[in-house]
Amino acid sequence: MRVPSRVGVAGVTGAVGLEMLAVLEQRSFPTELVRAMASGQREGRTVRFRGADLPVETLTARSLDGLDIVLFATGAEVSREFVPAAASAGAVAIDNSKAFRMDPAAPLVVPEVNPAAAFEHRGIIANPNCSTIQMVLALKPVHDAAVLKRVVVSTYQSVSGTGLAAIEELTAQSRAVLSDEPVVRDVYPAQIGFNCFPHIDDFDAEGNALEETKMVLETRKIMGLASLPVAATCVRVPVFRSHALALNVETEKDLDPAEARALLASAPGVRVVDDPASAGYPTQAGTAGTDEVWVGRVRRDPSVPHGLWMWVVADNLRKGAALNAVQIAELLIGEPRH
Amino acid sequence: MRVPSRVGVAGVTGAVGLEMLAVLEQRSFPTELVRAMASGQREGRTVRFRGADLPVETLTARSLDGLDIVLFATGAEVSREFVPAAASAGAVAIDNSKAFRMDPAAPLVVPEVNPAAAFEHRGIIANPNCSTIQMVLALKPVHDAAVLKRVVVSTYQSVSGTGLAAIEELTAQSRAVLSDEPVVRDVYPAQIGFNCFPHIDDFDAEGNALEETKMVLETRKIMGLASLPVAATCVRVPVFRSHALALNVETEKDLDPAEARALLASAPGVRVVDDPASAGYPTQAGTAGTDEVWVGRVRRDPSVPHGLWMWVVADNLRKGAALNAVQIAELLIGEPRH
Repeated sequence: MRVPSRVGVAGVTGAVGLEMLAVLEQRSFPTELVRAMASGQREGRTVRFRGADLPVETLTARSLDGLDIVLFATGAEVSREFVPAAASAGAVAIDNSKAFRMDPAAPLVVPEVNPAAAFEHRGIIANPNCSTIQMVLALKPVHDAAVLKRVVVSTYQSVSGTGLAAIEELTAQSRAVLSDEPVVRDVYPAQIGFNCFPHIDDFDAEGNALEETKMVLETRKIMGLASLPVAATCVRVPVFRSHALALNVETEKDLDPAEARALLASAPGVRVVDDPASAGYPTQAGTAGTDEVWVGRVRRDPSVPHGLWMWVVADNLRKGAALNAVQIAELLIGEPRH
Repeated sequence: MRVPSRVGVAGVTGAVGLEMLAVLEQRSFPTELVRAMASGQREGRTVRFRGADLPVETLTARSLDGLDIVLFATGAEVSREFVPAAASAGAVAIDNSKAFRMDPAAPLVVPEVNPAAAFEHRGIIANPNCSTIQMVLALKPVHDAAVLKRVVVSTYQSVSGTGLAAIEELTAQSRAVLSDEPVVRDVYPAQIGFNCFPHIDDFDAEGNALEETKMVLETRKIMGLASLPVAATCVRVPVFRSHALALNVETEKDLDPAEARALLASAPGVRVVDDPASAGYPTQAGTAGTDEVWVGRVRRDPSVPHGLWMWVVADNLRKGAALNAVQIAELLIGEPRH
């Protein structure tokens, strides 16, 4: 891999794409050039990067020529078309969509959990689902110490994962409710202003939302635990940024909460805040914009022999998407920095 | 019990007390007189009831004289003082606070689940915790058919359970966030505007919130299952009214989701809405002001042999508090109407 690299960011005008640019800049990722791309791009649009206005090019097969790394913040449909094209053109494509995550030929990588997998790519590396990334960072130290037996998780997911239009919808619906005006729905299938709903991505015939299935299958793939029992309910909550998880784990061996806290506190990318009586626990508003996965409320679940509860919060646009993708790129150029 | 009854409502100026008056009126509860009471009451305050202004009396031992039933919507401290006084004065006290719920001498009653317990009172009947009430309505048909083995629940609880000041705090903080102004905290230990936090009631030495312990112990008491394994994480979400539960149950026998749906649909007090692909699931905004416990997202959890997920939503001020208390009173006067 050439360093400094020729880097492309596709889908650069969305919430994740803009965050990818910000992370590249903040982490001083070594670049020879940075090309900003978006599909169906209007003429003349620019994005700010390192103090300059970067023109946004229309994403085409030709626009992917001559790049070493392309970060894709595009939706699955666009990724299915252009990610293989980027790989064919000689780049490594790091794709944030769900398109290639379960493809056996594409590694699914969280640098703190399975960094070696990044080097087994054939031109395409998949960036996992936002909720899954923060969950596996909390599960890894627990598994290493006590062996996971079963995971049951309920999520509290912010709207920014859906994109900028969803942020606007939460804003507009919240204003409408506060003014006693009618709520207008556009992006979401149910009201999000002052409301929660258990519907993230499409449903399968058994009634599972695809987001829930992602948390099952992606966790198994990242952790290399092909048959790990995982059960998930995914819920959208009226919060702008960061996702939270109520995470219940059952382990083969006993793991004292104090020991779990110590293991988590020394795990890469994880921060522990656990003094609940003094309101010492992570929240979404308190962690928005941060890079870490925050864990609190570590306590025994006595309803099984070796049960443990954790409350896991992370910025879904940073560690849950853009930061994780850039960390994968750092692995590839031999500059992993947590 | 004398019918029509002489009924008192204590704590009548709070969110639950006002709802109790509304439920008594809406269900045409037969009364000879209704006395409205509140502790630390300012002079001259009135509340509307059956088209008239009812004066709010200061809650004293003397104000409890001559009543058949007193509904208490007071906090635990006030209830500890006045609930036994009401019972001593000859009334049956139905108390919504946590003060007497685990008292072996006080039945803890959900009319659809353990109605017979209501008649074993010695003057005091406890009204369960809001989240627990809606959970046991969903658990009962599942237990009757397949025998509960373990329950894991995460809650999404609205602010109205905390009271009118919390509703104002959510309103004010939401406005502040939308206007990019500083968020002022008063009622809650953490920001509630566009934020969730896992902190409901006080914490014990093991790090469990009392609200979580209530869901364990009260469920066991109501269902008569003294050692049922129950694990709970309770979370406050920025929603005004109704609580939601992501409810994971493991049963001894297999229970097909379609069969579970049918059993739930025919259970008293329960309504099933389960067509998720068409956004057919209950939500908090959609159920506020209703009397039923709404169940959706009924599906298998294949991470254990007999696992089932449910999404359970109910108005915490109605079935979770005021309605359940009035239904207990209806049992006592022999007029149960679901």
